[in-house]
Amino acid sequence: MPQWNQATIVGVGLIGGSIGLAMRARGLAKTIVGVGRNKESLADALKVGAIDIAATDIAEGVKEAELVVVCAPVDKIVHLVQEVDRHCQPGTIVTDAGSTKGEIAAALSKGLQNARFVGGHPLAGGAKAGPKHADACLYVGRTVVLTPTAKTDQEAAAAVEDLWTSLGATVVLMKPKEHDEALAFTSHLPHWAAAAIAATTPEKWLPLTATGWYDTTRIAGGDAALWRQIFTSNRGHVLKALDKFEKVLAALREALETENDAKLEKLLNDGKNRRDAVGN
Amino acid sequence: MPQWNQATIVGVGLIGGSIGLAMRARGLAKTIVGVGRNKESLADALKVGAIDIAATDIAEGVKEAELVVVCAPVDKIVHLVQEVDRHCQPGTIVTDAGSTKGEIAAALSKGLQNARFVGGHPLAGGAKAGPKHADACLYVGRTVVLTPTAKTDQEAAAAVEDLWTSLGATVVLMKPKEHDEALAFTSHLPHWAAAAIAATTPEKWLPLTATGWYDTTRIAGGDAALWRQIFTSNRGHVLKALDKFEKVLAALREALETENDAKLEKLLNDGKNRRDAVGN
Repeated sequence: MPQWNQATIVGVGLIGGSIGLAMRARGLAKTIVGVGRNKESLADALKVGAIDIAATDIAEGVKEAELVVVCAPVDKIVHLVQEVDRHCQPGTIVTDAGSTKGEIAAALSKGLQNARFVGGHPLAGGAKAGPKHADACLYVGRTVVLTPTAKTDQEAAAAVEDLWTSLGATVVLMKPKEHDEALAFTSHLPHWAAAAIAATTPEKWLPLTATGWYDTTRIAGGDAALWRQIFTSNRGHVLKALDKFEKVLAALREALETENDAKLEKLLNDGKNRRDAVGN
Repeated sequence: MPQWNQATIVGVGLIGGSIGLAMRARGLAKTIVGVGRNKESLADALKVGAIDIAATDIAEGVKEAELVVVCAPVDKIVHLVQEVDRHCQPGTIVTDAGSTKGEIAAALSKGLQNARFVGGHPLAGGAKAGPKHADACLYVGRTVVLTPTAKTDQEAAAAVEDLWTSLGATVVLMKPKEHDEALAFTSHLPHWAAAAIAATTPEKWLPLTATGWYDTTRIAGGDAALWRQIFTSNRGHVLKALDKFEKVLAALREALETENDAKLEKLLNDGKNRRDAVGN
């Protein structure tokens, strides 16, 4: 028996579309509604089976929902959750999939009338955007961070945790700021550096790139506007991660300049050991 | 009819083993001899069919060779080519697969008695080292840079070009220094940055890494001693690439610090455009 009569996904791109497909594959909701402004994305989401019903009006899309998942760029999430709140039933469980959590948690810590909000961030994605590439198994084996606060309704937090566990993910609970500090290192710094490496490479030498360059710069191909928002919404933590990154770069450079081979090899091994500890 | 009676590969790791497998698959040599110091690698190379005969003595391994390919860490190549030169027949064609070319070309520009040397660098590799992972198709569709100089025997250069073309690669001819300048950006900088990103990531946050971090840091798992040699043998060009990288990082940082969102997005787009131009 489905757990939810109606789940509504606001924003049916790769992330939202994959949540829809994954919920449907597991029979978690009787009806899955997709809300979006882009009619092509909604049509694609219907076509791949990620949603049952498409709506362009948020009020219409959430009024019967028991669960709402907001999958939107980070600087749209607060406004969308407030909009959901205005039109949903009292007690509706609302969560998001935003890449930063501190700003959103602060903005939504008061003023919600109907929604029981639980912040979330699935650490998953794909090289190709859009609901056409949605994948019912996108979250299997992945980590999802939830960031309930002292003000979060515990029943709602447990329900969102259960949702992600049902989709195959491992849930980690963190404070919003702690999440943002961690992701500055594990996600935002890599993107920052990848963009810088790509931008540094002279156009004339691009034909001499190979697998090392491909891998290292792959995420630089992501949407620049989305990533700009992520960086600005996590400015403080990103700057701290950059401080540390620049210190590591300076130590490497000094070892190379002073021909300190032992030091250089030791620093390279520090990176290798950290990398090898992760695998994948 | 095989083009070579005997080809000898000095160093049968992933690169050398794959050359052996690829030559055998295309029937390019009657006999392929592998020379190495590591008996386990030689046994593996025999087992996967990368070589017909294993030799631990370089003199023994090259005395009948018409073609010798030296696949060794960059700081071993000069010595090995000189050793090959002492024991091979006059006119033997000798090439290498070293990641830097300037130092090697300078050291081998005179003094060779028997070998006709042509510098080379296949822009190919794999995540896993060793002849066990050798792949007859490793060079298909890849770029191989050859760095003949004014002193290089033209017939030898043409033969080495023909070898790589036969293995499915596209050959690009460059001056040794030009190769090193280009690779500082397309290969050495990515490795440098990947190692720095990995080393910067606090151990406690490693469980929150995901595909972006995996891709961006993957090459940091490479052998630190080998990479240390590559960096030191290309110090000048690597430092110039780092200068440019640091300028790009500084511009990004300034945009973030001064909350110049338009500039930040523009800089991220510079990286995205360079990345998108390559694909893969």
